[in-house]
Amino acid sequence: MMAYQQSAALKAAVDLELFTAIAEGHNHPAALAQRCHCSERGARILADFFVAHGMMQKDGQTYSLTPDTNAFLNKHSPAYAGGMSGFLNAPNIRRQFDALTEAVRKGGVAATEEGSTASHYDGWVDFAKSMEAMMGMAAQQIAGLVNEGKQEPITVLDVAASHGLFGFSIAKQNPNAKIVALDWANVLEITKANAERWGLASRVSTIAGDAFTVDLGGPYDVILLTNLLHHFSFAENVKLLQRMKAALKPGGRVFTLEMVPNEDRVSPPMPATFALVMLASTPAGDAFTFAEFESMFAAAGFSSSEHIQLEASPETVILSRA
Amino acid sequence: MMAYQQSAALKAAVDLELFTAIAEGHNHPAALAQRCHCSERGARILADFFVAHGMMQKDGQTYSLTPDTNAFLNKHSPAYAGGMSGFLNAPNIRRQFDALTEAVRKGGVAATEEGSTASHYDGWVDFAKSMEAMMGMAAQQIAGLVNEGKQEPITVLDVAASHGLFGFSIAKQNPNAKIVALDWANVLEITKANAERWGLASRVSTIAGDAFTVDLGGPYDVILLTNLLHHFSFAENVKLLQRMKAALKPGGRVFTLEMVPNEDRVSPPMPATFALVMLASTPAGDAFTFAEFESMFAAAGFSSSEHIQLEASPETVILSRA
Repeated sequence: MMAYQQSAALKAAVDLELFTAIAEGHNHPAALAQRCHCSERGARILADFFVAHGMMQKDGQTYSLTPDTNAFLNKHSPAYAGGMSGFLNAPNIRRQFDALTEAVRKGGVAATEEGSTASHYDGWVDFAKSMEAMMGMAAQQIAGLVNEGKQEPITVLDVAASHGLFGFSIAKQNPNAKIVALDWANVLEITKANAERWGLASRVSTIAGDAFTVDLGGPYDVILLTNLLHHFSFAENVKLLQRMKAALKPGGRVFTLEMVPNEDRVSPPMPATFALVMLASTPAGDAFTFAEFESMFAAAGFSSSEHIQLEASPETVILSRA
Repeated sequence: MMAYQQSAALKAAVDLELFTAIAEGHNHPAALAQRCHCSERGARILADFFVAHGMMQKDGQTYSLTPDTNAFLNKHSPAYAGGMSGFLNAPNIRRQFDALTEAVRKGGVAATEEGSTASHYDGWVDFAKSMEAMMGMAAQQIAGLVNEGKQEPITVLDVAASHGLFGFSIAKQNPNAKIVALDWANVLEITKANAERWGLASRVSTIAGDAFTVDLGGPYDVILLTNLLHHFSFAENVKLLQRMKAALKPGGRVFTLEMVPNEDRVSPPMPATFALVMLASTPAGDAFTFAEFESMFAAAGFSSSEHIQLEASPETVILSRA
């Protein structure tokens, strides 16, 4: 019942760079207050909270980080994941969970809340800004599966491209790959800025709009559907996949990245509990099983789907062939 | 970062009586939907979430409760504690935690949020309605310490009486005890209704107002300060305790119930992490150590304070003598 306090504490500590400050040696309340521009009392109580939760240590008035906290919450660490807080704790998602009772009654996002599939939903800008760190490992692995060690000229449609990491990782490995990034116009501003940063602007073009209705161009060798299908119902997904099939070259491939629970729907923990996020935030989304994805793709005319477990990721790749 | 989802799920399940429904045998999604007046999809996703978190079991489409979940979250269980959700997840507290970053900066409840010490704060009505279950064990033990097995005529001032449980437990054990319950006027409506329910209306009178300024009456044999002092600063508490001392008979006793962390302030977990609740919700409250309480009472003119650990409670009693 009080678990929300842990999320709030972690968000505050990320906002104020508390863990980073301790890593830098600002390791007692007065020094933390100065480095984090906060009250000494606030720094002491917040730091004590993490010690009590086993995420830091305290010796007298001196705090230190545990190895895990240093790896993932110190901004100077290459594995820093604090940025995810911006999306996972964004006000819109929090409000959707505040209205969870109504969402359970209704079977989808509460009437008082905006669903994350609405065209003017503003959460995807937060997402694009903050979720890159979480997706790096998966993006590398998918790029390897797409390129298969070759450097053939391919065109890739990245649907709901967001930060763009999935397409960019393919293009980094394969200098002959061209990426078409599709997303809402406001999100594409971030995609384009990231393409510049990756030095890929000349090989990345964009399509702004709704994947269900916009002209998709093509035909493509590869289409990426990363963390997209869980937002929609089975029937909506079949319609979307029919559009994807029509935009693929013969023999083209779709790589879908998804939270895929086992058939029991209660394991493994992350894909299983992800269904609740879809209940809270979308009209009809879900965490679909592999059997469901397989029949979705078959219903849209794909000839086969296979299931590829990623390393160091709670997510699964489904490779479907036109 | 996602722990808030667990609080929201638990609140929704308590609101909808999901655990109670399963205990009654409504143990698959369609039956749950009917009993809980919710969608089948919502019931399935919410129940799966608890299975994934180890709080329920699933066999095919049939859910069952674990022993702990049955004991504490089934309304038909005498140990039902679901009612605590009303206070622990109340919108005002959740909003205060949403603004935790600002509270850490400032060193107390965020400027945009109402502190729980304000006279017109409405959270104490939720508290009085929902926290009785959490306080029963402590109230029984304090009543034993107050009465010492005797039935002498005593008058007891219960400051911030709320649900009234602490005073009522004394009066139930001792037919010669009279209770004066002090709280905000809107909260006393609940105190009075509970006194009726306990059959104690003739021995319970009330004082409405602010403990820092209202006429306390007296003199009293015993004063109860249960879960009150953590809301204020050390200096404010000294002032309050001076008023209490003036309202006590010579040799009178104050029983203080508090979350008291060890001197390291990071153990045991519940009192240690409670400081963050006070940071988020009050201007200057804290989880004080026993050494701090001892000097607070000494500064207010009390002759001695002793520390009594309760059984099966995260809280501590401090017995101070005038």
